[in-house]
Amino acid sequence: MATPIKGPRPHVVIVGGGFGGLYAAQSLARHPVDITVIDKENYHLFQPLLYQVATAALSAGDIASPIRSILRRHKNVRVIMGEATSIDMDGKRVILDEGDFHFDYLIVATGATGTYFGHDEWAQFAPGLKTIEDALDIRRRLFCAYESAERLPTGSKERDAYLSFVIIGGGPTGVEMAGAIREIASQTLKGDFRSIDPTGSKVILLQSGDRILPEYPDDLSDAGRKMLERTGVEVRTGNRVTNITAEGVYVGDHFIPAKTVIWGAGVLASPLGKTLGVPLDKGGRVIVNPDLSIPEHQNVFVIGDLANSTPPGKDPLPGIAPTAIQMGVHAARNIGALVAGEPTTEFIYHDRGQLATIGRNSAVGIAKGVKVKGFIAWLMWLFIHIYFLIGFENRALVLLNWAYSYMSFSRSSRLITGSSRKAKTA
Amino acid sequence: MATPIKGPRPHVVIVGGGFGGLYAAQSLARHPVDITVIDKENYHLFQPLLYQVATAALSAGDIASPIRSILRRHKNVRVIMGEATSIDMDGKRVILDEGDFHFDYLIVATGATGTYFGHDEWAQFAPGLKTIEDALDIRRRLFCAYESAERLPTGSKERDAYLSFVIIGGGPTGVEMAGAIREIASQTLKGDFRSIDPTGSKVILLQSGDRILPEYPDDLSDAGRKMLERTGVEVRTGNRVTNITAEGVYVGDHFIPAKTVIWGAGVLASPLGKTLGVPLDKGGRVIVNPDLSIPEHQNVFVIGDLANSTPPGKDPLPGIAPTAIQMGVHAARNIGALVAGEPTTEFIYHDRGQLATIGRNSAVGIAKGVKVKGFIAWLMWLFIHIYFLIGFENRALVLLNWAYSYMSFSRSSRLITGSSRKAKTA
Repeated sequence: MATPIKGPRPHVVIVGGGFGGLYAAQSLARHPVDITVIDKENYHLFQPLLYQVATAALSAGDIASPIRSILRRHKNVRVIMGEATSIDMDGKRVILDEGDFHFDYLIVATGATGTYFGHDEWAQFAPGLKTIEDALDIRRRLFCAYESAERLPTGSKERDAYLSFVIIGGGPTGVEMAGAIREIASQTLKGDFRSIDPTGSKVILLQSGDRILPEYPDDLSDAGRKMLERTGVEVRTGNRVTNITAEGVYVGDHFIPAKTVIWGAGVLASPLGKTLGVPLDKGGRVIVNPDLSIPEHQNVFVIGDLANSTPPGKDPLPGIAPTAIQMGVHAARNIGALVAGEPTTEFIYHDRGQLATIGRNSAVGIAKGVKVKGFIAWLMWLFIHIYFLIGFENRALVLLNWAYSYMSFSRSSRLITGSSRKAKTA
Repeated sequence: MATPIKGPRPHVVIVGGGFGGLYAAQSLARHPVDITVIDKENYHLFQPLLYQVATAALSAGDIASPIRSILRRHKNVRVIMGEATSIDMDGKRVILDEGDFHFDYLIVATGATGTYFGHDEWAQFAPGLKTIEDALDIRRRLFCAYESAERLPTGSKERDAYLSFVIIGGGPTGVEMAGAIREIASQTLKGDFRSIDPTGSKVILLQSGDRILPEYPDDLSDAGRKMLERTGVEVRTGNRVTNITAEGVYVGDHFIPAKTVIWGAGVLASPLGKTLGVPLDKGGRVIVNPDLSIPEHQNVFVIGDLANSTPPGKDPLPGIAPTAIQMGVHAARNIGALVAGEPTTEFIYHDRGQLATIGRNSAVGIAKGVKVKGFIAWLMWLFIHIYFLIGFENRALVLLNWAYSYMSFSRSSRLITGSSRKAKTA
């Protein structure tokens, strides 16, 4: 299984088919190397739009493409679906759930997962939003809540709890989810029910810190909060969650009854980082050298959300798609250099800015010190995302789907599927 | 929970939101009655295109619409998501998994499910194709088989078994699946793999009878078989399956190694029919009166795949969508008549013909004695299905999705999702 594709060319293994891994593979394909991309899924996920799947505006297939078809034209790249469980640094091997692969050069790009800060028992009540399965689970819970409420008598406390939605975490994911759930309540479901009025649903965003979108300047945080409140979302800052049950959320002694709770708070680096045997930061990220390699292993690079790359005198680079993409391209360039017997170069991050959507027509953003907000920011967000989405495959249809969904307020993927459906409605 | 929506108008309960139930609800909505539609899913499924979801040409959301939004504009219709477990005929109540509903008039339209003819242990190895979950399970198995094969050494028997696909049942579902799987092997996956050649996959269609598409005249069956064989499907008639294991299929003493087996053979009426306390046929279908009511219960109607309606001197009506639609409209008309104090009328089926697709560009069909085959038949199939699909909701996008998928040979929904994925690839 560990046979190289052909000849004596160096073998580069890339673990992870996210933004970092894919861009690394595409850049490296031009070099005289054989490449193996390993991912536990068969698809690349366009994660920035995952909340649109959770809220039924897009289908899973709209934001995910098979890694094989993206890389099909590069004949020196092979793709393996399998889960890397550890790295054997001495033996230069990536160990999978089944079998292993020898590498001459390695890029680790397995990203980050959600964390409940030691309260894993909360996961069953408050799913996070990291995978397609998570998104479909959240979708199921959202729409099942309304189905359950419709069957309960008016004025019952249980019914009110089914019509209350709590989103934990005031970062971009939490803000986007809150805005979209509010839109479902106000627009999508209007008129669909006979016994309940979805427009009266409560949507509450809890943030432990003193402002939402803490990565943004104060005034954009404020603007974001006002936009969110205008759509009907209740924003509660300084609210640290202390417990979550099937019936709702505790903030200290205060109990918020809610049958649907979504977790958008913690992020923890992929556990594969630990097996590299090098220093990690407190979020579990690998502290990389300026050229993105790791200490004492010039042939191993770590990129994307798993890497802590800190420019001198600055904060660590943000865990967002543009960082991962730039790192992927740079790690590929450095491996190309090593193969050619040249020295590696330092990674320099080009900050192109950040944008966060806040419900329909609104967003906030900042690029090179220039702040944008409102409809203009939202249009920028839309075009940037469509541009990158189309970069991977011909996905003009997503745009059409989106345009249709936008104009009609309908959400065409409003299906409740999956096995936990019954448990939830029972 | 069992309170009627308003006033003293008669309450009609419709169990099942398939073609029959939906058309019944829409027709009845014009009458002075209150209507409750009960379905265990929140969506209506356009079942004739389910095989396109299983073979990744369409997303689940493309062929399913929330029952509530289809019926939204009818203010005297409410929709309840819940599973009807039995009918209490004396108490005039439909019993759900949770709660119950009183009815003055009842339409039972819960359709049919798959059956393994007493071999339920085969289900784990050979999933059927009746629900969205089934379709996603089959999709997962299809694409995981190629992923597993890519990781196994050339020439191993296990690898060959991963590259062999057996479809059991030569009816329309089996024929459509076989054609689509052959197309995935020959076109969609071409060039995606490095160690295997998907175009060399074996696709075998097993039919116990002496010809495929037995509902069609002999010459159309023959034509269908030839079309299928031209695409590369191996058709084996007179092959009754005697056992199925994780490793393959037995036809008597003959063993066919295949890791992916799909069941398209048996159909059994919904078990709800048994609880009506009236005679059933050997397929479990309720033998209905000429006006679609059931013996000794003028206020209870059974329609669609659950009904055995046999015109004098003829075969029972076929279990296809047009039959269910016509029956739904007629049952609604008869309930309207009863409410108005008028007599019911006999149901007369209008045979508009049948069509079955056979892979790309090919189909066979018959309408009013006229036979069509090949590309013309396929175009007819396409337009009829798009016409009906659009009837439910504005689904012009499905057509675009389809056109794109047709022209590019790509299948945009080629994701492997769900929990059984790991078990399958391990």
